[in-house]
Amino acid sequence: MILHNYFRSSTSTRLRCALNLKGITAEYAAYALKEKAHRDPGFLAKNPAGLVPVLELEDGTMLPQSLAIIEYLDEVQPEPPLLPEGPVARAKARALGYMIACEIHPLNNLRVLQRLNAQFGADEAAQKAWVAHWITETFDALELTLAQAPETGTFCTGEAPGLADCCLYAQGWNNRRFDIAPDRWPTIARILAALQGVEAFASAAPPRQPDAE
Amino acid sequence: MILHNYFRSSTSTRLRCALNLKGITAEYAAYALKEKAHRDPGFLAKNPAGLVPVLELEDGTMLPQSLAIIEYLDEVQPEPPLLPEGPVARAKARALGYMIACEIHPLNNLRVLQRLNAQFGADEAAQKAWVAHWITETFDALELTLAQAPETGTFCTGEAPGLADCCLYAQGWNNRRFDIAPDRWPTIARILAALQGVEAFASAAPPRQPDAE
Repeated sequence: MILHNYFRSSTSTRLRCALNLKGITAEYAAYALKEKAHRDPGFLAKNPAGLVPVLELEDGTMLPQSLAIIEYLDEVQPEPPLLPEGPVARAKARALGYMIACEIHPLNNLRVLQRLNAQFGADEAAQKAWVAHWITETFDALELTLAQAPETGTFCTGEAPGLADCCLYAQGWNNRRFDIAPDRWPTIARILAALQGVEAFASAAPPRQPDAE
Repeated sequence: MILHNYFRSSTSTRLRCALNLKGITAEYAAYALKEKAHRDPGFLAKNPAGLVPVLELEDGTMLPQSLAIIEYLDEVQPEPPLLPEGPVARAKARALGYMIACEIHPLNNLRVLQRLNAQFGADEAAQKAWVAHWITETFDALELTLAQAPETGTFCTGEAPGLADCCLYAQGWNNRRFDIAPDRWPTIARILAALQGVEAFASAAPPRQPDAE
């Protein structure tokens, strides 16, 4: 198995957490996004979308999209589960993950910031304001949701970390990069601190990857 | 069951397709996004994120996030299936859906266009250029992926429509709204035409909803 990814990519971090939780070891292949390594023909042949991560299976099958890969991992190796039991609990867990994966990350990744610069001349300060706006918008709602939900435990959906925690932990690293402290969101801050204490997460962090700058 | 949604919302359209495919009837509750009905305290109590759609279950449970709800529907009522059989096929099907749900829709919805206007003064033409950029970026990759995949049939993942088709059909309506013709993407155009011929999809279309303008 080969993990085609990049140390700082939030979707890559998310997937590394899930692989670690499952105890699955994959060969690490790095693509420096700033040098457009993900737009090389060699990588585009693996994923026409030119996006990391891609998980290459033993038979050469290429799986793109971090959340699709995480669901795949949970189907082929159910233990430890990344989603809770019961359809309603699973829907709520997925919804927490999608709040980050569909409402924050797509608006704040490198290519979007580059486009804001190209189309609107957004400088670094304007890009940071844009990023902070979307993180705050969703984290305010996520904090309320987590603080109110009886399912919330040490982690997002109970006493074992799962899919939503993979998304949250990766986003926590992005927030740090944009100087956004978690103080405004006490439940989120508490869960992020708990995740940092779990080796499956800590070892998935950007600074601990072989291609870290 | 109550479907809290809005006729033009792409995520709502996606979910209406899935409900129709499952033959599930839900009471229709409309929230006019342009009048900020989704930011009323009454709706925020249902979903702190202030986003449609929300599916309200018989016991009052509120499920947010269209894709989490679609997975829920597939778990509680497996027939007809919205995902193919086998972990790899399921991962590929989910990945197609996420290409739209994570790479296009989050960048092009109403609140993002409003923010582009507020922060960068983006007028209608600039907003349209922004929308067209992200649709083209991902649809080019989606076209390649669908054209190459042996799984592609009359629909995205075979001869029966599923999760990826729900996302694609809804995006097709968004594209139309922004005057983006599907001619550039022949496989996508063919699938969209096939979906329009399926009543579960056609009856989920924005113009056929009770709150359509």
